[in-house]
Amino acid sequence: MCKRRGFLWPSYDIYGGLAGLYDYGPLGAALKRNIEEHWRGLYVREGFFEISCPIVAPEAVFKASGHLDAFSDMYVECTKCGETFRADHLAAGLHPNPASLNETELGNLLREHKVKCPSCGGELTDPKRFNLMFKTSAGAGKGKVAYLRPETAQGMFVNFSQVYRFGRERLPVGAVQIGRAFRNEISPRQGLIRLREFSQMEAELFLHPDHKSWPRFNEVRNVELELVPNKGEPRRMTLEAAVKGKTIANEALAYFIWLTYRFALDVGLDPARLRFRQHLEKEMAHYAADCWDLEADIGYGWTELVGIADRGSYDVQAHISHSGADLTAFERFDEPKELEEEVVRPNFGALGPLFKGRARQVAEALSKMPVGSVKGKDKVEVSVDGEMLAVPSSCYEVALKKEKVSGRKLVPHVIEPSYGVDRILFSVLDHAYVKKDDYVTLRLKGLVAPIKAGVFPLMAKDGLDEIAMSICAELTKAGLVAYYDDSGSIGRRYARMDEIGTPCCITVDYETKDDGKVTIRERDTAEQLRIEIGMVPKAVETLMSGGNLRSLSNLK
Amino acid sequence: MCKRRGFLWPSYDIYGGLAGLYDYGPLGAALKRNIEEHWRGLYVREGFFEISCPIVAPEAVFKASGHLDAFSDMYVECTKCGETFRADHLAAGLHPNPASLNETELGNLLREHKVKCPSCGGELTDPKRFNLMFKTSAGAGKGKVAYLRPETAQGMFVNFSQVYRFGRERLPVGAVQIGRAFRNEISPRQGLIRLREFSQMEAELFLHPDHKSWPRFNEVRNVELELVPNKGEPRRMTLEAAVKGKTIANEALAYFIWLTYRFALDVGLDPARLRFRQHLEKEMAHYAADCWDLEADIGYGWTELVGIADRGSYDVQAHISHSGADLTAFERFDEPKELEEEVVRPNFGALGPLFKGRARQVAEALSKMPVGSVKGKDKVEVSVDGEMLAVPSSCYEVALKKEKVSGRKLVPHVIEPSYGVDRILFSVLDHAYVKKDDYVTLRLKGLVAPIKAGVFPLMAKDGLDEIAMSICAELTKAGLVAYYDDSGSIGRRYARMDEIGTPCCITVDYETKDDGKVTIRERDTAEQLRIEIGMVPKAVETLMSGGNLRSLSNLK
Repeated sequence: MCKRRGFLWPSYDIYGGLAGLYDYGPLGAALKRNIEEHWRGLYVREGFFEISCPIVAPEAVFKASGHLDAFSDMYVECTKCGETFRADHLAAGLHPNPASLNETELGNLLREHKVKCPSCGGELTDPKRFNLMFKTSAGAGKGKVAYLRPETAQGMFVNFSQVYRFGRERLPVGAVQIGRAFRNEISPRQGLIRLREFSQMEAELFLHPDHKSWPRFNEVRNVELELVPNKGEPRRMTLEAAVKGKTIANEALAYFIWLTYRFALDVGLDPARLRFRQHLEKEMAHYAADCWDLEADIGYGWTELVGIADRGSYDVQAHISHSGADLTAFERFDEPKELEEEVVRPNFGALGPLFKGRARQVAEALSKMPVGSVKGKDKVEVSVDGEMLAVPSSCYEVALKKEKVSGRKLVPHVIEPSYGVDRILFSVLDHAYVKKDDYVTLRLKGLVAPIKAGVFPLMAKDGLDEIAMSICAELTKAGLVAYYDDSGSIGRRYARMDEIGTPCCITVDYETKDDGKVTIRERDTAEQLRIEIGMVPKAVETLMSGGNLRSLSNLK
Repeated sequence: MCKRRGFLWPSYDIYGGLAGLYDYGPLGAALKRNIEEHWRGLYVREGFFEISCPIVAPEAVFKASGHLDAFSDMYVECTKCGETFRADHLAAGLHPNPASLNETELGNLLREHKVKCPSCGGELTDPKRFNLMFKTSAGAGKGKVAYLRPETAQGMFVNFSQVYRFGRERLPVGAVQIGRAFRNEISPRQGLIRLREFSQMEAELFLHPDHKSWPRFNEVRNVELELVPNKGEPRRMTLEAAVKGKTIANEALAYFIWLTYRFALDVGLDPARLRFRQHLEKEMAHYAADCWDLEADIGYGWTELVGIADRGSYDVQAHISHSGADLTAFERFDEPKELEEEVVRPNFGALGPLFKGRARQVAEALSKMPVGSVKGKDKVEVSVDGEMLAVPSSCYEVALKKEKVSGRKLVPHVIEPSYGVDRILFSVLDHAYVKKDDYVTLRLKGLVAPIKAGVFPLMAKDGLDEIAMSICAELTKAGLVAYYDDSGSIGRRYARMDEIGTPCCITVDYETKDDGKVTIRERDTAEQLRIEIGMVPKAVETLMSGGNLRSLSNLK
């Protein structure tokens, strides 16, 4: 249905395609845009700033983020047919968590169970690690190593200072980005669920570490949500109780869990097939304070659509350490304080002989480092002119400094709601799809439906077609996408519109010429009502915003 | 200003950046989105279908499109400092058209004039060709060679059949795509004008080769435009006269030149600094029937913003030849015709020995080829199972076939309006920028302005702040982006808004609490008017759609 009706299809099909890539056709592209637009609106109304960064990024960014070292899967290759497979997938069922094994362990496991190539039965190689970023090179000659971003998030982390300044140097401040991200999957096989190129909508909320709340939390504290915490039974509880009982780490996280829920219902996901699941302790990254996934029950089982994580200071701190840039916020005290502060004090006596002409630069970099990142280490790395230098602990000490200060620098914490657009789109289609006696209705919400109204002349003659076209034009002018159709029986035209999720249809018949009225039909109830032509845009708008035909009768 | 006020800044700055990449900050991203939204609206209203294809594409696509063989520049490298340069740029002034030389000729020219490295004076290598596509690899192991698309166009060409079917198999039919494209520039140095990663808005109109018109051409045939044809003097003429006199090749091309002009004015480009320039004969691709650029006069001189080309059947034909897919449209005759048609007839006697088990597949591929593409050649290439095979002319003949047919297949022609978003955005900023006695006003049109209204309480107390915030909320609800500001003098707040192009400001003062009125100020005239609070959204909307304060007085 998706392919036939123009929602989506495999990309570059005429050349045999490339696994993990899909095109959005006219209906799919419109549905996707509607989902993205609604998300943007929600976050912009919360006060987030949208920015837009390039997809291609230099290596240093991913060295800092950890993607270069840790964003990988293991694969095996068939020695006969050459096909490659995710090694942990082939070991499914042979071990409780194959992905947690290292190459050798996983290789032994596969050998032990005599696992062969699923395609041709050939022998498999030993598992090897494969970095999942697409690699490329910028510029001629040797060029500079670069990668396609695996997430939009890093663009916002490296721009923290820009965003903070634009927000007039206050915390909390948030950035959002909607765009493509890439993951060089070893063997993508689940349609829109596991793509090599996908779209993300990510928000990064930068917070004061001691104040992890959000102004509008008050408005939702009494809302109840079904939660699946990593300890104890799933339960329904208010957000306030969840935060007080430490089920959810803090108010800000709880607020964005709620906002995600609201978004999910707005775009038409079925609440009975949604759940918020907290990451298990072992799933959570070591730096994460808490992490929840919105999961949807779809054809592939419970599938992660959104992740909402409190990532602590990890990301910003990583970029401070690797770039040497000052990505801090400034907290102004109500009145200046006499502070005793631990600082990193360079030891010039030791630095001079070791670093010679660069000793002063190394010293400067050292004195900018947060104390926490040097304590207890026997050497640290600093960046000088883009080069990382190892500095032994003999070159600095942690000392106490007394000072009257008006405030202090702090590394912001980050709460990150991260949405996978393609998965959300697929789930919206899945939850909306209803088949009854071979009749397909796509119960898309008006908000996201690619086409808001079908407009049909009973016959394509006698001026009925012209009236229908002018209604189409009026709807378009009102910003409502309309589709003119004059071919086949009215029943078939209804069926075509029902199948692609158009919420209502307008029919122009011979009576229209006498009474100036048309028939409007609601998709989900098949109810019909005759209304004045001039009322059509208003009527369609009412249906779009959740009204029904009964409420239409009250329109004057 | 762009950087300070959050329009844009160089990407990954904290890591020393990567030339040719820019981030759009909150204002830049909003401006860009507004430009794209308006363009989308124009083309969708014309009946184009928007689709969305991946950025990563397999090699075969660009083998067919010609990018793999011909999308390149020449570079030289400094043997001392290692920097790379466009070889033709270094030869500027030494030859009338250095880019037309081959590597040897250009190398001789540079040596003859003793050209050295502009950075360090070192010796340069001989010029080498460098393909401008970013190369990558998909999948583990050997992986498959893939490229980042150099234009969004190819995604639409390869999808012609999908688009044609969605449009219910009628010509003309059009597709549009808005998205990122990539060009691995050797030494990008002109900010937004020459980016390695940029955004395009491209339309592909598929037409019957003999009917290159557009239904709405009638509405604009008498519009006059300033044209710079490649023969004779620049002149002002109606579109009808331009087509009749063969200045513009056909009505469809003329219509999209006009639509481009309308778009340019809508987004606020200055008509006095725009021109349509026809490509010189030698600039035009060999297959192009005609090509016009919209150029803007900006800081870098006359710069191409949009190219509008009649590309004939070149692109679709190239994909037919390379993929073997049937990317044709079907023209149904009014009544069946007895046709004598030239066809390619395979010679099995010769094919068998040469291709053995694949002879039948080769024969099938041959019989699908358009006669024009085999005539007069001593061999042709066909694609079998993704492999290109050379077939000598002894294996086929061109024969006459008589048949009663209801219609015929035809390869559509393409008219392509291709817009560079970043260049348009830069030109919009450049044309809007007015500096007078150090006071900067950005005269952005309401349609594209990132913020539609500033809302200020005279003082951030006594309830004035709450009134201002609620006005902000009302504007947001009406879809109008508003910005609340309570810091500094009203004059400074006006100045901040003027500098970023906000078309109007609303001030709440102490009188507001008595009379329920606020002051609205227009950016470009600095005129002011007091209006009811309830009228604010309507008033801002009126200003956005081109009204002025005088027209506001008539609002009730």
